Amino acid sequence: MSKKLKNETVSIIPLGGVGEIGKNMMVVEVGDEILVIDAGIMFPEDDLLGIDYVIPDITYLIENKERIQGIALTHGHEDHIGALPYVLREINVPVYGTRLTMGLVEGKLKEHNMLSGVKLRVVNPGSSVMIGSFRVDFIRVNHSIADACALAIHTPIGPLVYASDFKFDQTPVDGHVADFHKLADLGTQGVLALFSDSTNAEHEGVTLSEKVVGESIEEAVRMAKGRIIVATFASNIHRIQQVVDAAFKYNRKIAITGRSMVNYVNIARDLGYLHIPEGMMIDLKDANRYRDHQLCFLTTGSQGEPMAALTRMARGDHRQINIKPGDTVIVSASAIPGNEKFLAQTINQLFKRGANVVYDAVSGVHVSGHASQEELKLMLNLVKPRFFIPVHGEYRHLYHHAELAKEVGIPEENIFITEPGSVLQFTNDNGKIAGTVTAGQVLVDGLGVGDVGNIVLRDRRLLSQDGILIVVLTIDKDSGKIVSGPDIITRGFVYIRESEELILAATERVEKALAKCEDKGITDWGILKSTIRDALGAFIYQKIKRKPMILPIIMEV
Amino acid sequence: MSKKLKNETVSIIPLGGVGEIGKNMMVVEVGDEILVIDAGIMFPEDDLLGIDYVIPDITYLIENKERIQGIALTHGHEDHIGALPYVLREINVPVYGTRLTMGLVEGKLKEHNMLSGVKLRVVNPGSSVMIGSFRVDFIRVNHSIADACALAIHTPIGPLVYASDFKFDQTPVDGHVADFHKLADLGTQGVLALFSDSTNAEHEGVTLSEKVVGESIEEAVRMAKGRIIVATFASNIHRIQQVVDAAFKYNRKIAITGRSMVNYVNIARDLGYLHIPEGMMIDLKDANRYRDHQLCFLTTGSQGEPMAALTRMARGDHRQINIKPGDTVIVSASAIPGNEKFLAQTINQLFKRGANVVYDAVSGVHVSGHASQEELKLMLNLVKPRFFIPVHGEYRHLYHHAELAKEVGIPEENIFITEPGSVLQFTNDNGKIAGTVTAGQVLVDGLGVGDVGNIVLRDRRLLSQDGILIVVLTIDKDSGKIVSGPDIITRGFVYIRESEELILAATERVEKALAKCEDKGITDWGILKSTIRDALGAFIYQKIKRKPMILPIIMEV
Repeated sequence: MSKKLKNETVSIIPLGGVGEIGKNMMVVEVGDEILVIDAGIMFPEDDLLGIDYVIPDITYLIENKERIQGIALTHGHEDHIGALPYVLREINVPVYGTRLTMGLVEGKLKEHNMLSGVKLRVVNPGSSVMIGSFRVDFIRVNHSIADACALAIHTPIGPLVYASDFKFDQTPVDGHVADFHKLADLGTQGVLALFSDSTNAEHEGVTLSEKVVGESIEEAVRMAKGRIIVATFASNIHRIQQVVDAAFKYNRKIAITGRSMVNYVNIARDLGYLHIPEGMMIDLKDANRYRDHQLCFLTTGSQGEPMAALTRMARGDHRQINIKPGDTVIVSASAIPGNEKFLAQTINQLFKRGANVVYDAVSGVHVSGHASQEELKLMLNLVKPRFFIPVHGEYRHLYHHAELAKEVGIPEENIFITEPGSVLQFTNDNGKIAGTVTAGQVLVDGLGVGDVGNIVLRDRRLLSQDGILIVVLTIDKDSGKIVSGPDIITRGFVYIRESEELILAATERVEKALAKCEDKGITDWGILKSTIRDALGAFIYQKIKRKPMILPIIMEV
Repeated sequence: MSKKLKNETVSIIPLGGVGEIGKNMMVVEVGDEILVIDAGIMFPEDDLLGIDYVIPDITYLIENKERIQGIALTHGHEDHIGALPYVLREINVPVYGTRLTMGLVEGKLKEHNMLSGVKLRVVNPGSSVMIGSFRVDFIRVNHSIADACALAIHTPIGPLVYASDFKFDQTPVDGHVADFHKLADLGTQGVLALFSDSTNAEHEGVTLSEKVVGESIEEAVRMAKGRIIVATFASNIHRIQQVVDAAFKYNRKIAITGRSMVNYVNIARDLGYLHIPEGMMIDLKDANRYRDHQLCFLTTGSQGEPMAALTRMARGDHRQINIKPGDTVIVSASAIPGNEKFLAQTINQLFKRGANVVYDAVSGVHVSGHASQEELKLMLNLVKPRFFIPVHGEYRHLYHHAELAKEVGIPEENIFITEPGSVLQFTNDNGKIAGTVTAGQVLVDGLGVGDVGNIVLRDRRLLSQDGILIVVLTIDKDSGKIVSGPDIITRGFVYIRESEELILAATERVEKALAKCEDKGITDWGILKSTIRDALGAFIYQKIKRKPMILPIIMEV
């Protein structure tokens, strides 16, 4: 940052990731220039029926697109890079990140046919880059994906440290411990504000090292007599490396199934983040040439996702792999909130097919990628920020992280719990929440971005609960008389065959109500429709205590 | 059991509760006589859209109703007594249970206007009762509801012990430890088969005593400066007693909100299971006469259920209680699988309103009501059964419980993992699964029992994902020509205003397809409808990658 900006105001606007898990995105503004950090998606809550995912509302970025210098990415998880295709369509600026992160971004943009025309810049952990007038340091941290970084963004009134998604692993699989020295240096020089990962702020102690998982997996591989099938997050390259290492030690070949597992493994191998010895990886279709004790499969489906490979194996409809007694299935993951029942169902089905299932609840085959309380306090004590803003968490996580910050001595008035759109302003004198800008969620359903909203969702909810009753009738244009119908058609309501009487009685009820209208000379369609809705709704509720959507349709001939 | 039955075959048929959590029900058959144990409901899985709850299929009981001597209940939880109103409508037999259990059954039958005509028999823990020729011992155990019992059912070839839902609490709140001596006596005499609770078979060690929760709650009450609001399961009378005791110690009044909390507290007080000192309980509407530090509210909503009292407080639409800074909210429960997100949302909202929220993830304000591995092994070692059947659990729970049984020395061939409808047959010589009877789930939606099945649910699922497109047209009876329409009406699909073009183009597409039919002289409605479905489905998927339900409706004039 050039000297002339001294005493400038620094504004920070989270557009997502605060008060929620997902769609992480933050805006840093100094003078005329804007830097964007991360551009993630969020997986939809249960009540967002049919929605594929949620992206941040970037109205503010579009309104200020001329001022945006670039997008800096912390790491390659979907909740940090998943919204890039949508964002880059609106604001075409250079994107910066570490090598693996950019490899994943490249794959994503290729899928969206957007690769040409987008400037991708690889930055090495430990180095700095100028993005417009912003100097940004990429600082190595540990996480459940390789090549994750915290960022230091230098401003005229001091650096900001953005540490979304990290843990401190003292014995990391790739040997790269977090850059404690850089964080300490920044702390010595004086940090304006720290933005830090709140996911595990409720968890005491420290998060265990990824190495611990390696030991549990190796033990499970050692004990296995038959085939081994390991399901984990495809993006967790270190975890996959540990599976490969264990399989290698016990002379097993590796075969891969599941689209995203194939995808991540290929990218990670190409970029040198995953090492599989020559000749060890075999094609899935060649697996039957080997004996059971020579095989280890790596698969997607660690969340019990209905269409994933492990789930298909559990259901018995995977094309190549039929679970049989003697198989050992290692589910190296824990259920993300909302997936508990899916995963439990998969585990039940695997047991039923005779597999020995090793999973989080009964053995140590998973650890979190996020820092627990002692690590969070260490980050605070290393960085010693003037202001503290907990990020990456629901409100309860932000709350507990704020409590931790108070414990290590950050004054309460220097801690800000924000929400998407909050405008944080820092000057040499003070820090405050100075207002808000447009922010929120944009729903993506199929190819539609933002064309589904509250009314559509309310209808889907209604339809999902008790279905729909459609009442059609045809009216003669000239006489206003009903010439066909009313007919009642239902979907998602009851078995018609068993409820013929109910539908007949309902039709009679509608006919009577319409006859009354006719007697009174009412021909207004709006009144006819509400008459049908009222008569039918009351009747159905009284008879069967359900409230289906009632949709009257009037045709005219 | 009379002597003449010696060497008889004893058949056991679980109709629910095995391979699933919920709808517990078991049939015991000796000679001509049948005894039924428990009659519970299950709460629906997420994919059972709109379903209120699930009850066991009792076809087998209806077919054999003449032989049924009675229903014995282990305890008063919904997953053991909730289906009684439906079962008793089909088979009117006497019902046996402990005093609190029968008090709750009475309330339930009253709600269903079924109280008269049903014979309810109270049995004291520690005593026996004859049900037909079956002698049934009620054996006290500990659980998260008072007055829970295991049952010993005596047969000519030895007693069965049915211990669904228990823990061994060495320091129970009501002072009644489990009847270890009776269990040991049965073990000494020789038990034919044990049926035992598998819920926590994955959990090492022992389940903590309810007393531990009392200490945590007392500590939270001691620390609280303002009002206290405690949410817990309304049926957990011991938990409620501990809240009352803590409130009493710190001079707070108790006020109650939430229909089922009021209900359970009244029944438990009336029957002497809950002791609230004279003058301590106040009416909710009188709470404003007291200072904040004099108040403790007991409420429903510990699962974040959308309509429960605590959830309404969190949303800010509870009529009497407005959460404010200084309030302490104690959520004394853990989320039942499937409720995690609801509960997390409630906790987030409570924090946002300024409350100090004390909950399971951050403090010891909940313990399970089910035995962990060491208790399960103790039960096995006390009862020393010849055969062992794990019950009350998903398959993975039954599997792990079976592993525990092997560990304590039950031969593998004497352990049976069953499913609803399995017929277990025991003789003096052996035990085996001899066949199956009709069993399964019956869905209850509103007043409808069993009128919603796979097709209706599939439609609800379709409707919930992408909504519905209805295409209506009117055809002239004589000419076969279209005289009105096609019109497209959508619900739950897109915002029409933003997608006018799409709907216009879709209508054109349908018109073209119908014109082609007309050219070819096609008038068959079936063909017209499938033409509309195909043309529209392909077009919509190509344009927007969604698959709404498409419903063509043809009217004739």
